[in-house]
Amino acid sequence: MNDVSVSPFAGGAAYVQGRFVPMAQANISILDWGFTRSDVTYDVVHVKHGGFFRLGDHLDRFAGSMLKRRLAPAEDRVRIEEILHRCVALAGLRDAYVAMLCARGRPRVGGSRKLSDCENHFMAYAIPWIDVLTPEVQERGGHLWIASVPRVPDASFDPTVKNYMWGDLTTGLMEAQDEGFDTAVLCDAQGLLTEGPGFNVFVVKDGKVSTPAHGSLGGITKRSVLELCAMEGIAAAVEDIPRAALEDADEVFLATTAGGVMPISRVGRRIMGNDRPGPLSTRLKDVYWRKHTEGWHSTPVRYELATV
Amino acid sequence: MNDVSVSPFAGGAAYVQGRFVPMAQANISILDWGFTRSDVTYDVVHVKHGGFFRLGDHLDRFAGSMLKRRLAPAEDRVRIEEILHRCVALAGLRDAYVAMLCARGRPRVGGSRKLSDCENHFMAYAIPWIDVLTPEVQERGGHLWIASVPRVPDASFDPTVKNYMWGDLTTGLMEAQDEGFDTAVLCDAQGLLTEGPGFNVFVVKDGKVSTPAHGSLGGITKRSVLELCAMEGIAAAVEDIPRAALEDADEVFLATTAGGVMPISRVGRRIMGNDRPGPLSTRLKDVYWRKHTEGWHSTPVRYELATV
Repeated sequence: MNDVSVSPFAGGAAYVQGRFVPMAQANISILDWGFTRSDVTYDVVHVKHGGFFRLGDHLDRFAGSMLKRRLAPAEDRVRIEEILHRCVALAGLRDAYVAMLCARGRPRVGGSRKLSDCENHFMAYAIPWIDVLTPEVQERGGHLWIASVPRVPDASFDPTVKNYMWGDLTTGLMEAQDEGFDTAVLCDAQGLLTEGPGFNVFVVKDGKVSTPAHGSLGGITKRSVLELCAMEGIAAAVEDIPRAALEDADEVFLATTAGGVMPISRVGRRIMGNDRPGPLSTRLKDVYWRKHTEGWHSTPVRYELATV
Repeated sequence: MNDVSVSPFAGGAAYVQGRFVPMAQANISILDWGFTRSDVTYDVVHVKHGGFFRLGDHLDRFAGSMLKRRLAPAEDRVRIEEILHRCVALAGLRDAYVAMLCARGRPRVGGSRKLSDCENHFMAYAIPWIDVLTPEVQERGGHLWIASVPRVPDASFDPTVKNYMWGDLTTGLMEAQDEGFDTAVLCDAQGLLTEGPGFNVFVVKDGKVSTPAHGSLGGITKRSVLELCAMEGIAAAVEDIPRAALEDADEVFLATTAGGVMPISRVGRRIMGNDRPGPLSTRLKDVYWRKHTEGWHSTPVRYELATV
C-alpha cells in the first residue's frame, strides 16, 4: 500500500480517459452525452477490511446494464477488474466506495446525432467509504418519508439499469428534508412501493421479510439480505407491496452497497416499536457485517498494483 | 471580435467554476450531483446574424427552472447575461448554440446528503451552431419515428424544467435509428403526443396547426411559431393530440432552438404529401428565418467583451 499521507491519491483515485488521476482531476466534458443526456450507466461495489464485496456480481450487473444501453467501452472485463483494484490500491483504502461508469461520449463525426457514432468511455474511482445514512442515524434508526412524487415507471426507463436520472428521487428527498426526515421512499402511480435514492427497501410483518418486485434496482445488498434470510431461517419474499403495508409494518429497513442493512425507526408520522431499530432488522444488520469479517463473498484487493 | 484563427476559444468558449476557458477545458467533476444525480437544469439560446434570439425569454425560463429545482448559483441575472455575451464574443461566433447550466454541486460538509448543503454552480458555453436535424435532412423533410417507449409522466418529473434526463428519449432514438429514421417522438402512457429528443412537435390538419398541451417543454421556438401563426392568420391550438392524429396529419414539423422550424416528410411508415416538406411547414420555416434577418426578438451580441 502506498503512503497515503503524501500521496496525491489520498482523497481518492480515479481512472478517466485511460489514465489514473487524483479525484480532483476526475472530470467529464460538459458536452459529453453522458452528462447532457445522462446517457451513462454505473455500478458501485464496496471494499471492507481490504476486500471487495461480491465483486463478480457487481461486474455482472454492470455488464448487463451496459448491454441494455448499448454501451461498449474499450476496456474488457479483465481490464475493468484490474482498474478497480488499482484505484483502491492507489487510494490506499481498506474500506472504500468504488464506482465504475460507462458514458456515451460524443460523436466521432462532427454534427452527427447518431448514438452508434459515439466513442463510449469507461471511468472508475475509489473514495473513502460513504454511508447513505450516517452511522449515528443508522444507530437510532432512520426516519423515512413516503414521497408524494410517483417513481418513473419501469416502462419509461428500466430501473434495473443503474442510472443517474434521479429527478423523481431528488424531489422525494426535497420533501423528506423539508419535513425533517433522513430520506424518502417512492411509490409508483399504482401506489406500490418501489425504492429510494440509492437503496432498496424491506418491510417486516409477523416475522416475514419482503421487498418490492418491480420499480427498483436488482440490488446486490438486497440479494445478500435474501441469502441471509435463507441461512437464518427467516421467511422472505419478493412481491408487490402496497403503501399501506409499509405504513403498517412491524419493522422497515433499507439495503444498499453504501451502508449495508440500515434499520428505520419512523415511517412518515408513524413511530415503529420503541422508536429504535427493530429486532429482526438489527439481527440482519449484525449478521451482514459479521459475515464481512468472515470473508463472505470477499475478493482481496491487490494492493501491490499501487506500485506497478 | 477576436481573431478566431489563432484564438484558443476557436472551438468554443465556456464559463466554468468562475473562469472563462476553451471548450476542451469545460468539465464537471464526476462526483458532482449535477452528474451523479443529473441534478442540473439548463437552457439553450441561439445566436443568429450576431444577435441572441429571445434572450430575455430564455433567461426567464432558466430562472423558472432553477427556482423549481431550488438551484441558486452565485451569479445573478445581469451577470449571467454578461457571461453569455462574453462566451459568444470570445468564441467569435456570428451563429452559435449558447447553453447555460446550473448544477447542484457537492455538499460543503463532508458526508452530508442534504441538498441544501450543496454549492450550486453556474456554467455556460458558446459553440458553433448545431442543428437537431442536418440541413440536408431539413431540406428533404425529416423522417420521424413514433417510439414505443412511453414518455416519463409529468407527475414524476416536470417536463417544463429543461433537463438532461433523456433515458426515455434516448431509447426512442435507438428505435428510430434502428429503423433508419432521423429522430423519434414519444407518446405518454395514455397515447397522447408529447415531444422528442430536443424538440416540440406540431401537426397540421385542414390548415390548422396544433401542438401538445402536456408532457413537453414550454418551448420558446414553439411560442415563436404560435406568434407567427397569429401574425400570418393561421389557426393554431395547444391541445391534447392523440397518436392517431399525428399519423393522420396533413403535415408535421418540429420546433427547437437548435434548428428552428424543421419540416417532417415521413411519420413512421407513412409518407406525407409528396415525401417533401409540406406547404404550411415550409411557409412557417421561411417566415421564422426571414424574421431573424429583420431583427425580430434580437439582442445584439456585445462582441467588445472579448477584449475586456
